[in-house]
Amino acid sequence: MSYKEYNMWLQDGGNTPPPVETQIEERVLNHWDNINGHVERGYAGDSLFFKNGNIDYDPKRIRDYARFLSSIGINRVCCNNVNVTERAAQMITDVLLPDVAKLADIFREFGIRFIIAVDFTSPRLIGKLDTYDPLDEKVIKWWSEAATNVYKYIPDLAGFLVKADSEFRDGPAALGRTQADGANVIARALKPHSGKTYWRCFVYNCTQDWRDTKTDRPKAAYDHFYPLDGDFDENVILQIKHGPSDFQVREPNSPLLGAMKHTDQAIELQVTQEYTGQQIDLYALAVQWEEIFSAPVSDTQTMRDLMGNKVSAIVAVANTGTDINWTGHTLAQANLYSFGRMACNPSLTANEVLTEWIKLTFGENKELNKALLDMLLASRSTYEKYTSPLALGWMVNISHHYGPSPEGYEFMKWGTYHRANHKEIGVDRTEKGTGYTTQYHPYLDKLYSNKETCPENMLLYFHRLPYDYKLKDGRTLLQFIYDTHFEGVEEVEGFINTWDNLKSLLPNEAYESVAEKLKLQLLNAKEWCDVVNTFFRRLTEINDEKGRHIYD
Amino acid sequence: MSYKEYNMWLQDGGNTPPPVETQIEERVLNHWDNINGHVERGYAGDSLFFKNGNIDYDPKRIRDYARFLSSIGINRVCCNNVNVTERAAQMITDVLLPDVAKLADIFREFGIRFIIAVDFTSPRLIGKLDTYDPLDEKVIKWWSEAATNVYKYIPDLAGFLVKADSEFRDGPAALGRTQADGANVIARALKPHSGKTYWRCFVYNCTQDWRDTKTDRPKAAYDHFYPLDGDFDENVILQIKHGPSDFQVREPNSPLLGAMKHTDQAIELQVTQEYTGQQIDLYALAVQWEEIFSAPVSDTQTMRDLMGNKVSAIVAVANTGTDINWTGHTLAQANLYSFGRMACNPSLTANEVLTEWIKLTFGENKELNKALLDMLLASRSTYEKYTSPLALGWMVNISHHYGPSPEGYEFMKWGTYHRANHKEIGVDRTEKGTGYTTQYHPYLDKLYSNKETCPENMLLYFHRLPYDYKLKDGRTLLQFIYDTHFEGVEEVEGFINTWDNLKSLLPNEAYESVAEKLKLQLLNAKEWCDVVNTFFRRLTEINDEKGRHIYD
Repeated sequence: MSYKEYNMWLQDGGNTPPPVETQIEERVLNHWDNINGHVERGYAGDSLFFKNGNIDYDPKRIRDYARFLSSIGINRVCCNNVNVTERAAQMITDVLLPDVAKLADIFREFGIRFIIAVDFTSPRLIGKLDTYDPLDEKVIKWWSEAATNVYKYIPDLAGFLVKADSEFRDGPAALGRTQADGANVIARALKPHSGKTYWRCFVYNCTQDWRDTKTDRPKAAYDHFYPLDGDFDENVILQIKHGPSDFQVREPNSPLLGAMKHTDQAIELQVTQEYTGQQIDLYALAVQWEEIFSAPVSDTQTMRDLMGNKVSAIVAVANTGTDINWTGHTLAQANLYSFGRMACNPSLTANEVLTEWIKLTFGENKELNKALLDMLLASRSTYEKYTSPLALGWMVNISHHYGPSPEGYEFMKWGTYHRANHKEIGVDRTEKGTGYTTQYHPYLDKLYSNKETCPENMLLYFHRLPYDYKLKDGRTLLQFIYDTHFEGVEEVEGFINTWDNLKSLLPNEAYESVAEKLKLQLLNAKEWCDVVNTFFRRLTEINDEKGRHIYD
Repeated sequence: MSYKEYNMWLQDGGNTPPPVETQIEERVLNHWDNINGHVERGYAGDSLFFKNGNIDYDPKRIRDYARFLSSIGINRVCCNNVNVTERAAQMITDVLLPDVAKLADIFREFGIRFIIAVDFTSPRLIGKLDTYDPLDEKVIKWWSEAATNVYKYIPDLAGFLVKADSEFRDGPAALGRTQADGANVIARALKPHSGKTYWRCFVYNCTQDWRDTKTDRPKAAYDHFYPLDGDFDENVILQIKHGPSDFQVREPNSPLLGAMKHTDQAIELQVTQEYTGQQIDLYALAVQWEEIFSAPVSDTQTMRDLMGNKVSAIVAVANTGTDINWTGHTLAQANLYSFGRMACNPSLTANEVLTEWIKLTFGENKELNKALLDMLLASRSTYEKYTSPLALGWMVNISHHYGPSPEGYEFMKWGTYHRANHKEIGVDRTEKGTGYTTQYHPYLDKLYSNKETCPENMLLYFHRLPYDYKLKDGRTLLQFIYDTHFEGVEEVEGFINTWDNLKSLLPNEAYESVAEKLKLQLLNAKEWCDVVNTFFRRLTEINDEKGRHIYD
């Protein structure tokens, strides 16, 4: 199918969804769309679903959208943000349900079931009760009646999604109840209707004192949820971010995934590129996902082995919006495509799904396909080089998370510290440090705790090291950081050359729009390179061995 | 007058304004109130004048406000923010003028003339012209007609206030015109009505590249305006921030003040405590203003000598809002009082005006008055110690400007860099560096350029120095920074003790509200102390000589 044909197919209907093979029952897309029309962490225009406090959309476009989600195997969708406002909380009452149901009707035609994100405090917030305590009889009754009412409108609703006790949102802990108490009160309300609670595990102390070196944010999800294994009802799915930090370019898999033997789990990925280039910088997420799925969880199993078993669902935060190309960056369409395909079949490689996408999008030209595939496959490594080598992480501008700020988060309350000084950098997360590694299977604990066996690309996630620490190839840690930053810029320049060489083979619109993004990416790569290298040279007084220019 | 009586006087009317002696014709208060009701850089509640896009106020409260402004000698007031929104721009059209005029009527009763902040692009923005070029005939006519119409409603309007070519607001430079072209087109429209243009000089490159060491933000106002001396019409007043940076705790006086011989000037101060504690931390601005007015502008004159001459107006950004005590922090009332008194008579000392305010507010108790006076007189130095010794500056959290972030602005586009590395810190602003000092009278150029004669409290404003640079008392520069930070915390603890000891002498409400603020101030002081000291110890590896605790 050519680019043109594919676009026609997307926009004008036609093909039935291609058959998909799957080992995972639920392939879920979460939208962080606010009911005012703004998309949190959205880089592709406004919400497809909401405007000015109402459900308000172009039905033709939603049909296109539902069809193409279906075509890549997505079978659950949540349209509203997990950060639920008071207005959006009304999506489970008669105030908004008639309109929500009409939206769900469209997705149903394509075999996609609806999920609604709810506010845990709803019984008080919109129900006018004096509490939202999950063990209170009035609250139990409120959720039960709310669920019964919702299912009158949407009989096949998959369930409710909840972000509670997280980043200033109230939850059961605020009332001295457990996460299980919280998840179960909703699960029991949904059970008669065969619905589920999707309960997010992004629970951590977001008002940490930087002086406190005992608290370690990556430990939080495991600490909060692992002890409760067995306490959750059968129709609760714990939705766990793939890494213990927050959708970073490089982090280990969450030790919570697979650790709980009696609780259904979902792995949560992020298609929207919050920390991975914001649909300005090229970043093929399939490469990262393949690594995530291939990573060991013990001496005998990989993450992939858990999927379809205790990890019964795979979820991602969408990267779509009202932009005409759906994803802002034309090539970021590949990320949504990859998510659907790999959610259906986590054994697919990045090479396979990206090859599929390129052919579907641009046709069969061999030169074009190879060059584009190489570029996409390289893109994650390139971005990692200029932003976060060795899992450096969090040297990002606060709040909006684009561009470098080496100490931006260093003294803040979010628990994200590199603690760099004149001689060394990083946090010791082994047993001798914060003890984070002990949350893993002993095989991984040992692997990560030993500097020699720890994967080098995650060295600074697990260890505090001097700048002159020697890596396996003989380079010092700091020289590696300098090198990768310079290489990252060069590689973006390479992308620009590649893209220019492909001009005659590309639809003009696609060529122009991507060329413009690549220019911005180069500016960003240079900014990262110069700021981070200058930061370290000022701090350490160590020069680049190759004498390249580092600003004073 | 007791605290209670004073409050009654403020709120229930009574006394006529006390007589004021003055050598400065215009004592102006600028409010940065948005028409939606929010106050930019406001720390005392919402706007007294606006709500939800309209002029909307409690007339009784505005009468109280106008009366007390009048009582301290204020005779001009601008109620709307210099960052004018499209809606607020309508304050000079029939859309909002009827309501604006009613507000002006209230102030008129107390001898206070109105100023309106306007958007320079109004001819296009609200006039529907295709340009706002100040030399275009249509634009000239538009301003003229707009002015004529405004004066029908407010015959004694003092003039229009303009922020143009500043922080992403368009101005004449965007069209290749000069600042004089811009100011004059409005001045000529106002002239038949005896109005003036108040033209702000806060024009600088706010998209600077941190790699660019030639551009130096403090040079901007002088570079932009000094060459135009003589080009401005007689009824233009250039409104110049007192320092070349932006209302910092410590900066030299702007070299532009007094440099222009043929142009009327206003010195702009900030009563609202944007960078000086945000009405949480105690900070008696009178102390700083006394220093500003006493500072030399040449070998024979001080700033005070210019005031009432070429500096014909004194302006400040207000610190008031809908909070019941008007200023958030009860003791911040002293800042508004001090401004009015010192604007009338810049020869008054901080000691004098603060003594007056204390007596008017709390009565005649000697113990109370002395303790409170000592605390207020010390407060500026205390705040300086824990935030910005040696005019360090800008180590502040971005955007909201409260609390420490040593590198928060270091790689940003705002032109505010300390360029600290392992060995040294600061920017050389002498002739050998950015050349900023050459903008001053030769006497001051020489004074500031020489490390030995430069006032030590501004050392890092003018010089780049190693951490082991010896100050006059033998301490190193870094030890001084460590010392002042620890002292700042101790002094806040001292304020808390003082305040507690005064409890029985204070009205309970005043005691409680200030005690609460002091607790918050102590947290802030500790945060500054620990973050800044840790930052420097990480960077330099130099320990505190006295062995006090600095976090790793």
